[in-house]
Amino acid sequence: MFRHTSQLQYAAKPDKPDPVYAHKLQELIGGAFGEMTVALQYLFQGWNCRVPGKYKDLIMDTATEEIGHVEMLATMVARLLEGAPATATTKAAAADPVVGAVLGGMDPQHAIVSGGGAMPIDANGYPWSGKFVVASGNLLADFQANAAAEAHGRLQTARLYQMTDDAGVRDMLQFNLARDTVHQLQWLKAIEELQADGLEPTPVAPNALFDEEKTGDAHAVWHLSDGQAGDQGGWIGTPTPNGDPITYVAEPVAQGDTGIAPPPDPKLYATYDGSRGAPASPALGTETGPMGKLKDKLT
Amino acid sequence: MFRHTSQLQYAAKPDKPDPVYAHKLQELIGGAFGEMTVALQYLFQGWNCRVPGKYKDLIMDTATEEIGHVEMLATMVARLLEGAPATATTKAAAADPVVGAVLGGMDPQHAIVSGGGAMPIDANGYPWSGKFVVASGNLLADFQANAAAEAHGRLQTARLYQMTDDAGVRDMLQFNLARDTVHQLQWLKAIEELQADGLEPTPVAPNALFDEEKTGDAHAVWHLSDGQAGDQGGWIGTPTPNGDPITYVAEPVAQGDTGIAPPPDPKLYATYDGSRGAPASPALGTETGPMGKLKDKLT
Amino acid sequence: MFRHTSQLQYAAKPDKPDPVYAHKLQELIGGAFGEMTVALQYLFQGWNCRVPGKYKDLIMDTATEEIGHVEMLATMVARLLEGAPATATTKAAAADPVVGAVLGGMDPQHAIVSGGGAMPIDANGYPWSGKFVVASGNLLADFQANAAAEAHGRLQTARLYQMTDDAGVRDMLQFNLARDTVHQLQWLKAIEELQADGLEPTPVAPNALFDEEKTGDAHAVWHLSDGQAGDQGGWIGTPTPNGDPITYVAEPVAQGDTGIAPPPDPKLYATYDGSRGAPASPALGTETGPMGKLKDKLT
Amino acid sequence: MFRHTSQLQYAAKPDKPDPVYAHKLQELIGGAFGEMTVALQYLFQGWNCRVPGKYKDLIMDTATEEIGHVEMLATMVARLLEGAPATATTKAAAADPVVGAVLGGMDPQHAIVSGGGAMPIDANGYPWSGKFVVASGNLLADFQANAAAEAHGRLQTARLYQMTDDAGVRDMLQFNLARDTVHQLQWLKAIEELQADGLEPTPVAPNALFDEEKTGDAHAVWHLSDGQAGDQGGWIGTPTPNGDPITYVAEPVAQGDTGIAPPPDPKLYATYDGSRGAPASPALGTETGPMGKLKDKLT
Amino acid sequence: MFRHTSQLQYAAKPDKPDPVYAHKLQELIGGAFGEMTVALQYLFQGWNCRVPGKYKDLIMDTATEEIGHVEMLATMVARLLEGAPATATTKAAAADPVVGAVLGGMDPQHAIVSGGGAMPIDANGYPWSGKFVVASGNLLADFQANAAAEAHGRLQTARLYQMTDDAGVRDMLQFNLARDTVHQLQWLKAIEELQADGLEPTPVAPNALFDEEKTGDAHAVWHLSDGQAGDQGGWIGTPTPNGDPITYVAEPVAQGDTGIAPPPDPKLYATYDGSRGAPASPALGTETGPMGKLKDKLT
Amino acid sequence: MFRHTSQLQYAAKPDKPDPVYAHKLQELIGGAFGEMTVALQYLFQGWNCRVPGKYKDLIMDTATEEIGHVEMLATMVARLLEGAPATATTKAAAADPVVGAVLGGMDPQHAIVSGGGAMPIDANGYPWSGKFVVASGNLLADFQANAAAEAHGRLQTARLYQMTDDAGVRDMLQFNLARDTVHQLQWLKAIEELQADGLEPTPVAPNALFDEEKTGDAHAVWHLSDGQAGDQGGWIGTPTPNGDPITYVAEPVAQGDTGIAPPPDPKLYATYDGSRGAPASPALGTETGPMGKLKDKLT
Repeated sequence: MFRHTSQLQYAAKPDKPDPVYAHKLQELIGGAFGEMTVALQYLFQGWNCRVPGKYKDLIMDTATEEIGHVEMLATMVARLLEGAPATATTKAAAADPVVGAVLGGMDPQHAIVSGGGAMPIDANGYPWSGKFVVASGNLLADFQANAAAEAHGRLQTARLYQMTDDAGVRDMLQFNLARDTVHQLQWLKAIEELQADGLEPTPVAPNALFDEEKTGDAHAVWHLSDGQAGDQGGWIGTPTPNGDPITYVAEPVAQGDTGIAPPPDPKLYATYDGSRGAPASPALGTETGPMGKLKDKLT
Repeated sequence: MFRHTSQLQYAAKPDKPDPVYAHKLQELIGGAFGEMTVALQYLFQGWNCRVPGKYKDLIMDTATEEIGHVEMLATMVARLLEGAPATATTKAAAADPVVGAVLGGMDPQHAIVSGGGAMPIDANGYPWSGKFVVASGNLLADFQANAAAEAHGRLQTARLYQMTDDAGVRDMLQFNLARDTVHQLQWLKAIEELQADGLEPTPVAPNALFDEEKTGDAHAVWHLSDGQAGDQGGWIGTPTPNGDPITYVAEPVAQGDTGIAPPPDPKLYATYDGSRGAPASPALGTETGPMGKLKDKLT
Repeated sequence: MFRHTSQLQYAAKPDKPDPVYAHKLQELIGGAFGEMTVALQYLFQGWNCRVPGKYKDLIMDTATEEIGHVEMLATMVARLLEGAPATATTKAAAADPVVGAVLGGMDPQHAIVSGGGAMPIDANGYPWSGKFVVASGNLLADFQANAAAEAHGRLQTARLYQMTDDAGVRDMLQFNLARDTVHQLQWLKAIEELQADGLEPTPVAPNALFDEEKTGDAHAVWHLSDGQAGDQGGWIGTPTPNGDPITYVAEPVAQGDTGIAPPPDPKLYATYDGSRGAPASPALGTETGPMGKLKDKLT
Repeated sequence: MFRHTSQLQYAAKPDKPDPVYAHKLQELIGGAFGEMTVALQYLFQGWNCRVPGKYKDLIMDTATEEIGHVEMLATMVARLLEGAPATATTKAAAADPVVGAVLGGMDPQHAIVSGGGAMPIDANGYPWSGKFVVASGNLLADFQANAAAEAHGRLQTARLYQMTDDAGVRDMLQFNLARDTVHQLQWLKAIEELQADGLEPTPVAPNALFDEEKTGDAHAVWHLSDGQAGDQGGWIGTPTPNGDPITYVAEPVAQGDTGIAPPPDPKLYATYDGSRGAPASPALGTETGPMGKLKDKLT
Repeated sequence: MFRHTSQLQYAAKPDKPDPVYAHKLQELIGGAFGEMTVALQYLFQGWNCRVPGKYKDLIMDTATEEIGHVEMLATMVARLLEGAPATATTKAAAADPVVGAVLGGMDPQHAIVSGGGAMPIDANGYPWSGKFVVASGNLLADFQANAAAEAHGRLQTARLYQMTDDAGVRDMLQFNLARDTVHQLQWLKAIEELQADGLEPTPVAPNALFDEEKTGDAHAVWHLSDGQAGDQGGWIGTPTPNGDPITYVAEPVAQGDTGIAPPPDPKLYATYDGSRGAPASPALGTETGPMGKLKDKLT
Repeated sequence: MFRHTSQLQYAAKPDKPDPVYAHKLQELIGGAFGEMTVALQYLFQGWNCRVPGKYKDLIMDTATEEIGHVEMLATMVARLLEGAPATATTKAAAADPVVGAVLGGMDPQHAIVSGGGAMPIDANGYPWSGKFVVASGNLLADFQANAAAEAHGRLQTARLYQMTDDAGVRDMLQFNLARDTVHQLQWLKAIEELQADGLEPTPVAPNALFDEEKTGDAHAVWHLSDGQAGDQGGWIGTPTPNGDPITYVAEPVAQGDTGIAPPPDPKLYATYDGSRGAPASPALGTETGPMGKLKDKLT
């Protein structure tokens, strides 16, 4: 269960309204790596976590903080939209290029749809989607995704930091940058901890299948583009997290058969010249098992 | 420019058709971490890469291979659908529970829409989306996302491996598992290389802003959920990639003001009791600059 | 800022795992009227609310509770998935129709993607979208949408209640039904309060434009389908919230001109026979204003 | 079956082209509360309506009218785009700020994709989605959603009305405002009628479950945010549509167990320390019923 | 403006309910080539059509008919869902494999969301999208898309025809097949008419640019996959609609430069080794034009 | 399997950066008819193709070329973004209208998300979707869709050609126009070839059902809009591809029953007055078949 405090985690006070910047700042709310993503991603990871204790607690602490980050950004966007020329006409915009520049750079839905408030969308007006959430139940795979999400979040925040010189906005973004730093660091440390605790090895997952995978194909980079430097990186020939070094196949050869779809079911009306016979029949499961035998007896 | 060889990178021959498994295998084609995602993700990263040489070449080698993985999986799906009871009626399905189980587990669009072939969708029929692609121009942030994508791809492949005992399908998946292993290893090694080359430090990005971020907030986990073990992980008190250890704020206090949206523009008809005055006016840019001055002179 | 308590708002313990029901229950998490929608909808309404005090507090109280409802449902889904035959093969499913029925009714992504946990998707695997959120800044319009959302939420919960006889699941849903009842009632009462407080009249919005709208068209139902009973409802002839009764136009006549698109710009290559002349030119704003005059002087 | 008259329901003639306004007007065509939404929403409600007579006739009359509203708006958009500087280059736009403002405010797809015509998208270019349609079969829940949709439609129309001073556009919007008024009024009246007819009571739905829901939790607002005015509204202590007044729980206590996901299936490779045993097994339905018994006999 | 007749264009009466088939039939309502697509596609084409007379009339006649097709299919789906075991529990489904097969094959939202009615979604529950509509203003390009849409619509209808033996359903589908036939034929004939009328030539569009395109590249198939039969089709060497025959480049050579992204803006924090200098500056338009000159004078 | 050459198929070198044009050019990358669509569409058609030889080879040759077109366009976009005022503030944009026009016309995500590179999105920021792919297995239906896609691709390229006077950009687009011409021609020729080879007749598909469709309804245009010229086209009365001429029904009459949804399941809580009895019961398949008989014996 959750509780809410009206006070923001950190101040969100711009010096001056700036509706064009509000438009851009939506990326940090509803973008693929915005605060809605990390909030919901950590919540679902926490709710799906099977290990009580330090990992689950770290996840839930961070998840709960991120809801508050959405709140800070939503408040900031509303304040940046204060007094915006949202209802100015095209004629007014065309008569004064300065108004025109501001109107042209606004998100029109900030006026028409939300009436001056933030929305769960990104800087291009694309809505936040549940597909942005990564929560697999495997903590190592998920923490790698978390570290990547915080890296992209911090990168986008840094870019947006350069696009304003409003002291109030910059003050808040300095806080956001710092939180992205610690969250990124904590997920990288937690990745080490998972391995130290013997819960998950690298590479992810699952090592139990190492014996079954084609081990001969598990350490070779295939050279399939004509750049000549792919084998000059430190990644070739030095030990990897699971021991064996990576090798380089300079002239790779396709190992498979000629890819061709099988003969089709005539009732599906796919184009077919009959050259390769009729489709195999029947599919797995439609002819065998106790039910098949039973049906014979009953009919 | 690209060229194509009809031979598959590795054989994709099931022992027997299995339309229910074909439905599930779609996740590896069009899912958020399917082969379409890594293929397109690496292509856009490669095309946007500003560093000629080993990094770009590694990205393009891998990107090109992944297009071939979509091809292998698409071929496998078509072969698993051969002879499927796709056109059987509900009456037939109800009369024979074995047929019913197969029909109920199929993707109906595999019959109605694609006529027995693979589609660019996931295991729930959701279409592949350009939003799955991560390509920021920052190689460290992108390689972290790549390592995470390969981790999830290998995890999902491992789960799907357990859901079949068809020797032909398993043979191909053993190859896929191995390729996911080497790709995961290579991105982790390339992350080290970027730092060794002095191109990007950890944490991502950009360190140039470390002096500006709120450094006091850059290393503290805030305790906002009531689990008591969040400070018992190795992540507290030990050095991090950028030096300072992470601390733990057991009783955090909100530092911001009370979050409230500002007075609204009356023409937007937001509900408002007037208690907090009229909106600030005008917004940034609508009153200043040479154009403002110019307009005064002209009118 | 938000805080989290590990204890659920209400118990979420099924008597027995039921992965087919978990599939259906996803509708209440990530569906258009699921708990994610009401949680985020109320949060954005609260953050955008311009009226400090009772309305904002009611919104934030309810918003915060709804995050906890997502938590309860996510926990319930994970528990319903315990021990599911998620990794059984098609052969196993076909050999035992009971297993087949369970596997056929599961969401395959509950195994492949989330590894036994809930996801931010609906009962058809479609992801939750920011487009489900309604937050306009106008409290009357928003509270009507809230009442409708709670009505649909309660209706869907009631339908799902009928689809299980698991006592633990039903116990939780009885709590959810009750919460949907009170939330629905509170929004209906708050609609009355807004009007009693003189903040918003009915119909929504804004009454300030009543004098400008075509008042002659503001109270007439047009008879455009051939059913004969459209004028037999109590809605015809009796007073409405804004006074005048609704009338019925039995034989409506189109009042507009013939709808036809204007002559096209030749460079856009739309098909055109030239019969209606050249396009009007230029568009609003491209010929007038101080800049137009200025440009003349400078060139 | 439908028939079409070339004459528009009401005139859609702008005084002058205005491509920037055409961009904004798309919200009323393809937005979440645009005319496509109400048209399709009412059509699906009408087609799914189980009550022949006045309700179904009112729905179908209104649905049919709304198709004509999409037509009016699409015609208006095409006319607003006449003579737009759609094919002007960036150089031209930069050389003349007035042209620049118009080009910057246009939807680029109005030139590239539709060649000067309207599209089924909103003011941010997001396509209309079937998810915007609400049609549950329960008329009370649906009519509440209809009233909310008309409220938001009228609100957005009123905002757009303020963003133009073109007399022709305003003339059409005055008609649209009026139609939104009567439709909003009619759904509110029809909600009363449903209750007067004894078909549906408030709150929605279904009252048959009132005895089963947790009645102790059906009338209490939980205080979960720290605003202090949530109990000062008229909604506390006064009778509600279903009788009992709403109460206020000032210091609510979580009633559930600690939310934790159950032990996972090892083959799904979720991270787990084994501390809570193996997963329950088997799931509902995979061990019982006549087929289970039968299988025993046959094998 | 539109009018509606309660009578369906053609009868939609199944002999017997079949909820599994209703699930599949959704593809013809809300799929990419379903009736909603052709209805809305033709409506937008008609509203955007610049040529009054026979073309516009044909488009509007067909568009209006297609709305009635959505109606027929929606009615059929509701009737196929009558008496469905929609509220049966998993226990009931597992105890009776026949019920299990039906429940497993249903769309769960047909019970939970629509309460027994059709929805604007496809056979996998994906919502209809405005992106399915093709309306470019160029009638030749649009009519080709229309012919393709009717071809796919008829193909899917034919596949669905094979999946039922219900005489009532088949009767309606025989009507739908026939309508798809005539619509397909009419668009193919209208393509000829456009050319006969001299309004649009083949290939689409626009021929006015033939002199500017790289004519040397306008008739050659490049051999980029290793299949050896690409030059054995009748398409090589015989006249084409615009005269010149298609040739075959057996060993094509890339004609471009090495693709590499340019030096990045340092403030965007893309990874860059500086090897290729600083970014070009400034971009088009930011240094020239009357405003640039003016700014110099004013400052 | 695929291989990659670093050299582009054709040069992609703009004379000068132009970030506003880069924004528009995204339509050709990630739009509904952009290069990603044709690349993936042809790949899936090729992988699903059942006819080895000339058709499959033509498809794979073209598919492989189109991946290279995405590469050319992505490179062009990155180069057009070089030195863009991406990190300029609103204040700077407002102070200099020329900068303002450029900033207002840019895609903000080109700075915030991709850091100066192309993205898999269209000119409105909507992501590329798997739903854009058409691949049915029926080559005639697919080739018609291919011809339409190339027509729209060429049309959009021609429109974009008019929106720039940059010689480098125009040089590349002249190549693209030419490739769209030959691809369009080749699909039109391949449509003829399919018929010449006797593999598929017109109209698509499948002719095997001609005897079963309502032949009386297969050649008549229904007059449902009031335009009077629908019967004046050459499409009326002249032979069609399958022989019989199209006729015109000037005063069509609905042939079906009154469309009304059947009585609902009470547990789904749809509004119903009981006037039409109880729902039919049970649905197809839930009462018959060997399992029904078997269940009787066992219980």
